[in-house]
Parts: sequence; C-alpha cells; structure tokens
Amino acid sequence: MSTDAPRPEARNPRGFVDRRARDLVAERRILAAVSSVYERYGFEPLETGAFEYADALGKFLPDADRPNEGVFALQDDADSEGGGQWMALRYDLTAPLARFAAQNWETLPKPFRRYAYGPVWRNEKPGPGRYREFVQCDADTVGSARPEADAEIIAMAVEGLEAAGLPAGTAILKINNRKLLNGLMAAAGVSDDGQKLAVLRAVDKLDRLGADGVRLLLGEGRLDESGAFTKGAGLNASAAERVLAFTAAGVGGRRETLDALANVVGGSAEGDEGLAELAAIDAALTGLGVGPDRASIDPSVVRGLEYYTGPVFEAELLLQTLDERGQPMRFGSIGGGGRYDDLVARFTGQQVPATGFSFGVSRLATALKAAGRDLAAEVRGPVVVIAFDQARMADYFAVAGELRAAGIPAEVYLGSSGMRPQMKYADRRLSPAAVIIGDDEIAAGTVTVKDLDLGRELASGVTDNAAWREQRPGQVNVPRGELVATIRKILDARP
Amino acid sequence: MSTDAPRPEARNPRGFVDRRARDLVAERRILAAVSSVYERYGFEPLETGAFEYADALGKFLPDADRPNEGVFALQDDADSEGGGQWMALRYDLTAPLARFAAQNWETLPKPFRRYAYGPVWRNEKPGPGRYREFVQCDADTVGSARPEADAEIIAMAVEGLEAAGLPAGTAILKINNRKLLNGLMAAAGVSDDGQKLAVLRAVDKLDRLGADGVRLLLGEGRLDESGAFTKGAGLNASAAERVLAFTAAGVGGRRETLDALANVVGGSAEGDEGLAELAAIDAALTGLGVGPDRASIDPSVVRGLEYYTGPVFEAELLLQTLDERGQPMRFGSIGGGGRYDDLVARFTGQQVPATGFSFGVSRLATALKAAGRDLAAEVRGPVVVIAFDQARMADYFAVAGELRAAGIPAEVYLGSSGMRPQMKYADRRLSPAAVIIGDDEIAAGTVTVKDLDLGRELASGVTDNAAWREQRPGQVNVPRGELVATIRKILDARP
Repeated sequence: MSTDAPRPEARNPRGFVDRRARDLVAERRILAAVSSVYERYGFEPLETGAFEYADALGKFLPDADRPNEGVFALQDDADSEGGGQWMALRYDLTAPLARFAAQNWETLPKPFRRYAYGPVWRNEKPGPGRYREFVQCDADTVGSARPEADAEIIAMAVEGLEAAGLPAGTAILKINNRKLLNGLMAAAGVSDDGQKLAVLRAVDKLDRLGADGVRLLLGEGRLDESGAFTKGAGLNASAAERVLAFTAAGVGGRRETLDALANVVGGSAEGDEGLAELAAIDAALTGLGVGPDRASIDPSVVRGLEYYTGPVFEAELLLQTLDERGQPMRFGSIGGGGRYDDLVARFTGQQVPATGFSFGVSRLATALKAAGRDLAAEVRGPVVVIAFDQARMADYFAVAGELRAAGIPAEVYLGSSGMRPQMKYADRRLSPAAVIIGDDEIAAGTVTVKDLDLGRELASGVTDNAAWREQRPGQVNVPRGELVATIRKILDARP
Repeated sequence: MSTDAPRPEARNPRGFVDRRARDLVAERRILAAVSSVYERYGFEPLETGAFEYADALGKFLPDADRPNEGVFALQDDADSEGGGQWMALRYDLTAPLARFAAQNWETLPKPFRRYAYGPVWRNEKPGPGRYREFVQCDADTVGSARPEADAEIIAMAVEGLEAAGLPAGTAILKINNRKLLNGLMAAAGVSDDGQKLAVLRAVDKLDRLGADGVRLLLGEGRLDESGAFTKGAGLNASAAERVLAFTAAGVGGRRETLDALANVVGGSAEGDEGLAELAAIDAALTGLGVGPDRASIDPSVVRGLEYYTGPVFEAELLLQTLDERGQPMRFGSIGGGGRYDDLVARFTGQQVPATGFSFGVSRLATALKAAGRDLAAEVRGPVVVIAFDQARMADYFAVAGELRAAGIPAEVYLGSSGMRPQMKYADRRLSPAAVIIGDDEIAAGTVTVKDLDLGRELASGVTDNAAWREQRPGQVNVPRGELVATIRKILDARP
C-alpha cells in the first residue's frame, strides 16, 4: 500500500449497484413477509451456492471462443482434484434446484417443496434499470403431477404478494395452459409452424388493433392507414372466429371462462387435457378460498411457452403507472411461473413433474411503490445525541443506551465537528430528533430534544406551519426521566 | 434438451454446499438478531454487488499467469464500454466498504456507520469445514478517530453476540492495541525485525511451555526433552521479564490491566498512546454499561497486527469443545476486528480513520451449538393433511387453510402414494402431526390427529414412555372445531 502506487478509481463494476437503507428496507420486508407465507404452506428454505458447474446449468454451455455468453463463467484451477472445470454463477434459481433435486432425489421427502431467494447474475449489457445482479424469490414443488400442486403455488403466490404489501385488488394472478393453445391450433386446423406463428402474432396485436383488425390478420391480411399491407395467417372464417373466441374467453369467473374455452378447444385431445387440469386448479383454488378476483383463468397469457409444459401463471399489477415521458402505461407483470417437467430429467433421465412461481424482488418493490406503498419513505435514522464536551461523553453514552434499551435507534455523534455540523449530520441521517445535553441541562437534570422530523416536514412544505407549530414546538426542554416518552411522541406524530 | 445428449452429473462445485432448513434457521436468526442490535446503534444497512474491479480489491491483483490467486476473477467483455477489465468476487466486506466510502465520501454523512452481511468468496483449496463461499457480517464506523468509536463497536459486538443467543458469560470480547506491542518492543530495547519475530514466537508458546519455558526462549534458548535446542531471542533478563509481565497483565478488571501495562510499556511514546486509547475505550465501555466480564483488555491478543493500526478486538467463546478425536479443546475466536486507517486512502490519498468488527455466521452458529443453543434442533416441518380420496381434496385444503390462518405451517400431501408412505413423508418432514379425514370423520364432523412428535420422542428414547403415553395418547379423534387447539397442544408440549 505504498503511497507511490497508482491509485485505483473507486467505482462499481458496470451493471452492479450499491443498495443503501432506502433500497434494502423494501427488499427485506418483502422477503420476510413472503418467506413467512411460504413456510406456512409447508415449503422449506434452501440456499445453494453462487456457482454451478457450467454443464449442470445447461442452457449456457461455455465454448472455447466466448465462455461468458450470458453468464459469468470461469475455469476452476486446473491443478486441483476435479479441477479445470468451467463454473458459472447461477442465472436463476430453477437450474440450481434441478441440480439439487437430481443430486438428492433418493433421500428427499417427495414431493419436495422448497422456496429460495438470493441474487442471480446475468452477463448481459446493462442499461437503465437493467442490472447484471438482482434478487429473485422462487417457490417450487418437485415431484407432484397433480393440478392441486399448481393451485397451491398459485394460492401461495397470491397470498405472498398480499403479505408483501400489495393492497387487495391491485394485482391478479392469471392462469393459462399451454395445452389449450395447442388444442386451439388443432381445432382451428393449424399444424404448420409458420402459420402458428402468424396466428400468435395476430393475437398479440389485439390490444392495438381490436377484434376487427385481428380478424383481418388471421385471414387474408390487413391494409393499414398508411397503405401498407400485412399478409395474414390464412385461416378460414370459422377458424378465425374460433381464435377470436379463444382470446375473448377470459372474462367473468373461472367457471365461465372454462365453459367458454370448452366451446372453442374442447374435443381436441390436448385441449381437453388442458381444460381438465384448469378445472382441477379452479376447484382447489376455491377450496383454498382464492376467488376469481385474485386468480383468474386468462387464455391471453403466453408466458415462456417454450419452457413450460402445462399450466402457466402470470402475476399482473392492475394499476396504471407513468412511463418516462409521463404517459400512462400498464405496469404489467410482477412475476410468473408454471409447470415444467424436464429439468431433473436432464441429469437423471427420469421425468420429474415440477411447478413453481418466481418473482424479482426489486420489481415487486417498484410495484409496491406504484400501489402507494413506498417503504423507502419510512426509513429513519437514529436519534443523535449531540457531543459538546469530551468530559461528558459518559453522559451522552448513557442517554444513547437508555434510548436503545427502549428499542429506539440512537447514537452519540462521534465525529470531530461542532454543533451546527452535528445538526446537519443528524438531518442527513434522517434522524427524528437530536438530544442536547449541555452544562445547563446537566445542572437542571433535564435534556433538550429538537424535533427534526418537524423541521423536515416544514421544509418540505407538506404541512401547515401554524397548526403544526402549535402541537409541536420544535424544541423542548424536559426532565431527564421524560426523555424516552418525548422521543416516542415525535416518532408517533409522524404522518 | 435432447435425450441423446450426454447427461451431466448432478454435483456441487467443490467447496460449495447446499444449505437446507437445519442450516439456515440458525443463520437467519443470527442475522435478524444482530441486524436489529446494529440498527439500534445507528448503523445503516449496505449491500454492495458481488463483484468489484480487481484493482479496487487491491490485495489480490490478478496477473497474467494466474488471475485467480485467492479470488474468483474473470475479465469483463472486452468489446463493452469500459470493458475488458478484471473483476473479482469480493473476498470480504471491508474492501467493498472502502471502495464505497471512497466513491461517495463527499455526500456521505460522516462518520459513516454501516453494517453489512452476505456471502464472500475465496478461491482456495476447500477442506473439511472449509468452504469457498461463506457468510460474513460486519459493522464499521468510517471517519471517526475517536476511541469511543472503537468502544461502540465493541459494545455493539458484545450485545450482538448475546442477542444472537450466546448465554451471558460464555463469550468475552478481548481488547488489545497494536501500539502497546510496539511500545513493549521499544521498552525492551528490541528494534531488529528478526528479534521482534523471535519474541512474538516465544510469547506464542506461553500456553504450551509456561512462563519458565518462554523465559528461556526470550533469552539464550531452550533445550527440550528430546535434546533439541531452540535458539532464543537473545533478550537480557530484565527485558525478558518485561515481556513476561506484559503477557501476564491481562488479569483482573480493565483498570488493573491498564495499570499493570503502564508499568511495562509506559514511557515509550507509542506505548503511552496505546494506553491512552485503551483508557478512553474503558471509560466509554463503562458508560455503555459493558463490564470487564463482557469486554476485557488482554495484551495476548495479536489478531492480524499487520493490518490494524491501533486497537484490535477478538471475540472468544470461553467454552471447551471436543476436537475430531474427542479431546477437549478451546473453541477460541468467534470474530474480531480493530482500527484500520489506510483502506480509503488507497483510492483518495486521504487518510480516513475507521474501525470495525466482523464475524463468520456459520462459525457463530457452531459456537451457539457448543453453548447448548442448537437452533437446528428446533426446525419443524408442516402439519401434513393426509390425502385419501381425490373427491375430498377440497376438504383437505380447507383444513390446511384453517391451520395456516392460525399461523401453523400446514400442507396437503400432494404426491401419489398411499397412507403409509404419506405418514413416512410427514415423519421425514419432521411434521409435528398428521391430520386424517376419512369418510368416518367427515360423517361424524371430526378429525383424527396423529402426534408425530411423540412418536419421534419415543423412538429417540429420551422420554419415559409410560409417563408420556399417559399425557399424550399418540392419536386422538376430536371435533372439527377443536383441530387448531389440538395441534397447538402438540406444538406446546415439545420439551
């Protein structure tokens, strides 16, 4: 550490951020609330290591030219036992679960129900709000093919989001089944992959073009206002109506939707299978007390269809928010999941049915804020005991200790500055109050308490000055024995 | 995911482990308890990213030949903006703090007090109990040179360990000061580095050889029983006695120790400075209500002296445990810390005084277990509702929902096996009870509750069978309305 050595620049690696109290309060409260719900549903916690061997991660196998494609990968020491292998930081929590389940399958209680949270890493180009490290929270049931296992995951996700603080009615969990879409294609006579894609693309424009526009795109094609022609999927009229009926089926209760869907995809083998699974999910949800206002069946959900094998779920925030240009926009997805049956088989060859739900913690924190629950605004600093006099430090510490013993965060100022910078320090810490103990106070057996919350409220202009000043005088001198009660009054007065 | 592809083996990367409920319960409870104490002391949480640029980590600069020396390092994409730089996973929480503090120094409230916990990574050879990933928990005050800042860290560490569950009297925080040792060397006339090292080595054998043996090693040398001669440090008799008096000074209260030390190192400039700092720490600890039974001054603590610049602390478990061969051994250190003043200067050139305390979370969990607080033994599974009949699933879910609403973890068995495997499943989940609802129960409006806790206690042989059987009949049939109360009785009966 020679002073001659060139000094490195203090900076974060690109795509990585530091999170302070404001960011962490929401994240920690979400994880505590959701963990508590998940454990009540009988899911046990699991934490796996940050690294997996690259072959176990599967999706992003490193190659000689570019070992870091999508993941952060490195080669373990070549001279170690079992060394020289490529390792990569996990990019989600599902791949490590599959590895863990395959590794311990013989000894695990089955079905195996676990939840997990922690950072995942993506070696991608960072951007505004897009980081290369973020925290996910997953719950999965491995080893149950029953639709009731999906229903429990759905009910638990709904309850978890509510426990995290989303007000009832602000979010909904939408359920679909990949088999319905396959059944629809069969019923509409679509078997060609290119035509399937054209149908999906047409359906995807429903929000923008409405049913009439989509009807054209499902048929021969559509001429837009600019005169450009988009070729259609080439369905005949009855097939196109079937597709439109499918997309329109997600209204009303779950039973109504299932009835409407039966008319459209019933009769095809896959369609019937999907309908039967959704009917069982509906029944279990009803048994679990989860009504259609909290979990609906919605055939428009197309979440990651290539990955999932049956039911899929999407949690959606129903509120509108503003985009960067101040325009109203739907907030959209908070998390999702579904049934997947191939991940353990990668290791063992044995098909193991699994289902799960996953959400990004900072995304949920953003959703909470959009729903009016800004936990960051609740962050407070400690009460600061102003330090005047080196000879009085023991008195200051005794006051801080008394507040702490009462459960109130407190500290003695330990820098080397005078009164005014100490007040500024307390203000920057977002302290509710500063405690002043000078010679006068000590002689009189009192303490002076300065209400910093009030100062911030007055400064922010949200409070009517006169009315507040009457109730909260800003600074009071009270007997030493009333210190804790005086501070509590300030803490409780917070709007 | 073709079935023809070779199947990877499901295994952890070497030195990485999976942690399940048994491991996590202690860790999470420790972190929650310690965080709460640290926040009450006015420390704010901080989480930095897993990666730092290698030049910012400093200690382990990657070189061309072996970029992974001690850390997990990789080169960022070369074609990105600011790319091609070496990044490494943090190996502790202090280096990221130094980088963060340097980066944000202008805008931080000063002194800056933060705590942090999270995994750190060491690219070292793993061994039994030695992992390449483990969780640390740190608290530091950056920007205060006051000894009171050290005292607060010490008091907080003591309170944190107690809040984590260490019974009073089982651990002590030992305080030393690097300046004392320098003062001792000056007072004993030792200036040569080789001689200093010989003195330290002799002192280090105090436990094994006793004062007489060390006296020989401090002087001309020592002939052991086998006839081998160890050359001594070459001190004269009065210098050797001074060193021995130094090592023996850590008895009695903090004031007594300081007085004894004043006789040995007083008069040397550095010795006097160290004594003054320790005296101020002692006074502040007394103000904070931390007596010598919880924090002592002990000149035998030599923790990482090359790294620290003044006071150093070591938390020690006072209990004896058994080593692998069943021999009693001192448990020793749980954590430690001290004052360090150069870390921020690496970036800014500006000396910033700092002090902190760090502990390894799994080490503390092991200490708790040694002290008779085995949190893992408290882990319980959910109540399992046995599933007999597909047509009754809604009833099973209603029962599980009722238990969950009462705060009792519960689940419906969702596998495809019969009664006996379901009971075995519940037992492996460590469920306190299983709930059975057959046709008879539904007709009679009752539930059957099987006390699985009792079964495990009987099987473990720790309980007197007859006495227990009388109070706990093993299986009861109760009216449906008494379900929650019946389960609670089982939960509360746990020894």
